[in-house]
Order: sequence, then C-alpha cells, then structure tokens
Amino acid sequence: MFIETCIAPVNIALIKYWGKRDEELILPINDSISMTLSTDEMCAKTTAAACSTFKEHRMWLNGEEIPFEENSRIMRCLKALQCLALAKGAPTKFPLEWKLHLTSRNNFPTAAGLASSAAGYACFVYTLACLYGVADEELTAIARLGSGSACRSLHGGFVRWHMGHLADGSDSLALPIASASHWPNMHVLILVVSDGRKKTSSTKGMQRTVETSDLIHYRAKHCVPSRIKAISEAIRQRDFELFAKITMQDSNQFHATALDTYPPCVYMNDISHSIAAFVHAYNAAIGSTRVAYTFDAGPNACLYVLQEHVSSLLPAIQISFPNDSADNVEYFKGIASDQLTQSAAEATDISLNGNTSLPIHEHNLLKYIIHTKIGAGPKRLTGKEEHLINITTGHPY
Amino acid sequence: MFIETCIAPVNIALIKYWGKRDEELILPINDSISMTLSTDEMCAKTTAAACSTFKEHRMWLNGEEIPFEENSRIMRCLKALQCLALAKGAPTKFPLEWKLHLTSRNNFPTAAGLASSAAGYACFVYTLACLYGVADEELTAIARLGSGSACRSLHGGFVRWHMGHLADGSDSLALPIASASHWPNMHVLILVVSDGRKKTSSTKGMQRTVETSDLIHYRAKHCVPSRIKAISEAIRQRDFELFAKITMQDSNQFHATALDTYPPCVYMNDISHSIAAFVHAYNAAIGSTRVAYTFDAGPNACLYVLQEHVSSLLPAIQISFPNDSADNVEYFKGIASDQLTQSAAEATDISLNGNTSLPIHEHNLLKYIIHTKIGAGPKRLTGKEEHLINITTGHPY
Repeated sequence: MFIETCIAPVNIALIKYWGKRDEELILPINDSISMTLSTDEMCAKTTAAACSTFKEHRMWLNGEEIPFEENSRIMRCLKALQCLALAKGAPTKFPLEWKLHLTSRNNFPTAAGLASSAAGYACFVYTLACLYGVADEELTAIARLGSGSACRSLHGGFVRWHMGHLADGSDSLALPIASASHWPNMHVLILVVSDGRKKTSSTKGMQRTVETSDLIHYRAKHCVPSRIKAISEAIRQRDFELFAKITMQDSNQFHATALDTYPPCVYMNDISHSIAAFVHAYNAAIGSTRVAYTFDAGPNACLYVLQEHVSSLLPAIQISFPNDSADNVEYFKGIASDQLTQSAAEATDISLNGNTSLPIHEHNLLKYIIHTKIGAGPKRLTGKEEHLINITTGHPY
Repeated sequence: MFIETCIAPVNIALIKYWGKRDEELILPINDSISMTLSTDEMCAKTTAAACSTFKEHRMWLNGEEIPFEENSRIMRCLKALQCLALAKGAPTKFPLEWKLHLTSRNNFPTAAGLASSAAGYACFVYTLACLYGVADEELTAIARLGSGSACRSLHGGFVRWHMGHLADGSDSLALPIASASHWPNMHVLILVVSDGRKKTSSTKGMQRTVETSDLIHYRAKHCVPSRIKAISEAIRQRDFELFAKITMQDSNQFHATALDTYPPCVYMNDISHSIAAFVHAYNAAIGSTRVAYTFDAGPNACLYVLQEHVSSLLPAIQISFPNDSADNVEYFKGIASDQLTQSAAEATDISLNGNTSLPIHEHNLLKYIIHTKIGAGPKRLTGKEEHLINITTGHPY
C-alpha cells in the first residue's frame, strides 16, 4: 500500500469569483484574488491510499462514505491527475490502475458555510498529486475542475486566479501574488452568524446570475479588471486602507449582482448588514480604515485587520454585538487573544478616543468568532500518525 | 381671503428613479415609470389660503408648524409657480405679493415610509396652482423641484417621468402613459414591515450611489431605457406577466445599485426578502406570474395583483406571514376584502392546487396591510367643509 496525507487551507476571496463562462470546465468570467488562511485554525486534511487489493475507488468525507465514481467532479479531477502523471512520463511508484481509498476531514464546521469545498478539493488534488508523484503549476487547473475557488487554495498568501482565455481552460490557473511572509500581520476574524434561511447554492446562484443579470457582465468586463490591478498594488505596497476599501467594495458589488439576479439570490442577512455597518462606524470613529469586511455566498462576515489592531477591535465587537457566551471557550476560537479578558469598555474607549457611537445590537446575534491569519499553501504530512486511513485495513480510523 | 383645498395621490415607481444629474434642479439620470394609487386609501390633502392681512408665509404639516421661508425646496416651488403665473399673464384673483398660509395632512402614517413627500409636494404645487389660477404641463417640472418623484403624482394611472436633456430642466416632465381606466383592476397590497433600523435618506443615498457605484451608470444608460420601452408596451397591452417580471427585476436592480454604493445603502431587510421569496414561491406554485413586488427606499413591500386574484392571494399571505392581529380592523386597511374572513387554508388550497410549499414564517413580521388600487391624479375639492384652514382665523383647524 502506498499512502499520503496532506492538509490544505481555506481561502477567502477579496475580488470575488461569481459566474462561469463554461459550466463543465469551471471557467470563470473574471479574474479573482484571494487570501489564504492559516491551516492552524482551519484546514482540510486528506489521506489517499493506493493498493493492489482495493476493489474499487472509495471515499469518506467527515466520517461518512460518499459516492466516488458517480461524482463527476471527483472523477474529472482524478482523470486529469492520471493524465498529468502519464504526460510527465515519470515512473509512478505503482500502476495507475490501482484503486484508491480516500478519507477527508475538515477541522472546522462545514455547516458554517466557510468555503469548505475549496479546501476540500485542493486537498484532494494535492494529496493525489503527492501519491502519483506529480507536482506542477497545472495542479491548480485540476483543482479548479472540482470547485472553482479550490485552485486558489493551492498557494499560500495572496493568490490570483487568472480566468484565462483558451477554450480548454488550460490557461485558467491560480498564481501567487505574494507569500504569507510578505504581510505576516494580516489577521482575520470570522464572525459566524445565526441564520436559518435556506440559500441558493453557489453553483446554481452564479448560473442564474450570468443568465439573468445585466450588471454581472458589466462588472466582469469593466469593474473587476481595474480592481484586480488596484488591489494587487495595494498588497504589494502593504497599503491596508486601499486594500480594505477595494475588498469591501467588491464584496458589496458581488452581493449587488446576486440581488440583480432573477429571482434574486440573497446571501447576506440583517445581521451581516449590521456587521458591515459596524465596520463603517468603527472606522469612522477611529478616523481611518482599520477593518475591512467581506462576505461570501452566506451570511458570515470575514473581517481583515492587522494583528496590532485586533486587541482594540475585539472589545468593540463585543460592545456592538454583545454575547452571553463571550466567556465560553467555544465562543472564541482560534488564535488566543489575552486582550479579550481586558475590560472591554476600557479597551474600546482607548481605541475610539471616547467616542461611543457604535450601534449596540440585541444579544447573541453571533454564534462564534474564529480568529485566524494569513497562511501558507498545502502541506504534505510525513508523520505516520497523521494518516486518516489504517494501513492494515485500508479503511478510515 | 382666497382659499383652495386639493388632494394628491401617492405613486409607486415600477422603473425606479435613483440618482440625480443635477442636485439643485432635481434632474434624474434616467426616466422612471410609476403607477398612481387611489386617493381613497392614501393621499395628501392641502389647503392654501392667501390674504392681504397675512404677515408672512406659514405652513403646518400634519398639525405642526414647519419652517417655510427657510425651506429652499418649498420656496423654489413657490417662486416657480409665481413665475409661471406671471408668464401666463393671466390676471390672478389677488396680488402675488400676498402672503400664504398652507396646511397639509397625509391620511396615512408618514412613518410607514410610503413616499409621503411625493404626494405632499404634488399636493402643495397643485393647490397653489389652483389658487393662482394656473394649470399647465409645466406643473410637473415645478413639483419635481420639491421632490423628484412628486412630478409623477400629478397624473393618474401610469406615468412616465422623462429625464429630459436640457440643462435648465424644462424638459424633465412627467407625462401620462395610460389612465387608471385603462387597467382598472390593477390592485395593490402594501405590506408594512416591522423595522427598527435607521436608513440613509433617499437624497443622501442616491447622491452616494451616483458618486461611488460603477453599476448605477451602466443601469441608467443601458438597462433602464430598454425596460422603459418594454414595460410601457406591457402596460399598453395589459400583459400582467411581463409587467410583473420587469417590475420585480427593476426593484431588485435598484436595490443592487444601492448595495453597490460605498458605504452600502441597505433598504430591504430580512422580512422584505422573505416577502420577495414568498412572491416567487407563490407564483411558482400557481404556475404563472400573478403577483409582483416592488420595494422603494425602505423595507415595505408593494405587491401588484389583479383584483380577481386578491381573494386567493390574501389567505396565502396570512399562511406564510401569520399575524395574531389578522382579525383586528387595524391590521387590514383600505379596500374591504370579505374573502379574508373565508377559511384561509381553504382558499389557499384552492389557489395553490393543494401545493402547500409556501414558506411559513414566525408570527407578526408584518405590521399591517393596506389594500388599494390604481387611481386618478390630484383633485380640487369644492366643499367648504373640506378646508383645513379656518377662513375666519387663517389658521389650521
């Protein structure tokens, strides 16, 4: 039996991917830019095993077996990887015909709607690439076949997914803009929001937007290119204020085009909008843009803030969004913040210079907060204890 | 003393006005189309009196005196009317120098955010025009100086506000498309929604949108003109399905551009979006587009539905948005609907052919419902008992 285990990160788009020009090959209508999050707080972990005795491809996701050969996206990624291995001409350690067993787990709640498929497909492709002994820029194009935004999770730091122009999608690749070490104090707070509504899936939503919204095409052609340029420069120069403004504007525009869809796709809820309004009020009170929000196809907020400002931001969040579980370890996940235990009022008074004009909302609008930061790309784990598959049985532990 | 009393209707835009090219003259960046609502359920009523003994211009709005000469919009309308009277050369019944007393009341809650300024300024201008003895197409351009959408309230039925192209705004006029009798069974349900949030005013909101949204300009130039054409044709042909689709699309696009603003303007809330989703679900269950929604710069929904379908729609609303006050006369205002007292389940089962897939929300999300319909333009009231000003004292009753 040959076995490999890897982890891959979550990425959060700054310039949003919304709309495909090719549903089959998952080719987007515009470039997108994302930041990769540290795997310390959130990651997908996958073990892939190949054995001459395996009878069929099998896969387990978060403990439950899921269909493999019936899943066209998974099969497309697998076949593309096998083609790549053949094309490379590299002698693989075992025949490509051997069947595979795969196990994958996310170390964060899938229900939180936090781009779990991006990390999942990136990890799937990266782990199989290790198993087959191939490593190539082209891997991002293969991950893209599983879930568009997965291609961006194959790099750390800031990543640009080039939409490409070729019909076969071979130039639709993710490339790094800057590594995590370029802007190491870029921290992220994910505010997980209570929400009961059933949402339109991203796949269906973006399809409907491309078909029915006039604004999405103008956005893709005219708005995104200049934003891609401007935010790339802001990242290069570590210009947080510009970075933050473009990020917020692009999040709003993405949700605007979703709303321009018929019937409309609504992903943000009242709490999401309250968080956005809080960020604007907080920045106004501070007198500079210290925090930026972005929202994906769900109600949770992702806040960007430099490490040195986390300790004054957190108490302000607690004042504006009071939570009865704030002292519970389950409420505040991820990077520890001693500052949380400071007097919230004191810290906020300092940070806001006595201005207490923040809106104060009803209790418990937030489920929990994850504190994380910029991070590196996927990683191969070499410790035998890391494997999620029992090498004796070929099944998940 | 010379005295006149008039009423003027509310209008609800189908193709939205959002964005000025001239703040001073209130000139819009695109044409808009509205439907005028019956004054039986909602109207502004204004009495204007002129007397040689009045010392200064004074005005009372809903019982409270408000500044007159300090209000630049009111003064601009007044001066434009006086200019018009002079230009017409018509001998007025009294010198233009005489001071005025005006009293105005809305017969609907201003707090409901239901375009009260449009009806108010239309009534102000129309009543003064009666007092000065001028009547002209140009009145709509004068009402526009008070509040943009007020120009559309000077006509009944379906009305188009032509943006115009002249710098002085003299060709920015509202003209009728079709009278109320053209589509007399066009009914409206206004769902007034509970909401505590403070909104950006329309004036500030549209200013910020024009300054910061890329999408608004594309909308004004490319999307609105084709919609104006298409919905005018739908109105002419009484094609409800097409009328409804364009109306909903344009409401969504207006809110999309508001969201594309920086910082974003958010006028719809979770309840508003639930109503929109209900309408799509209801139409899907029925198998044709029987109801359309539109939302102005606030959370309340305005539903268009033909008279013959009101009785099956209302119970469905009651099922999806259950309200403990549904039997209270205060909950259901306007045109009486005997059908409401039918078994809601029965009526809805009939209308939905047994399909009960409507989303059922928590209780009391709606404050109340106003049932009204298409209506005529402003009207001069001749009965002495109609005046809101005591002709002996010159003050409001």
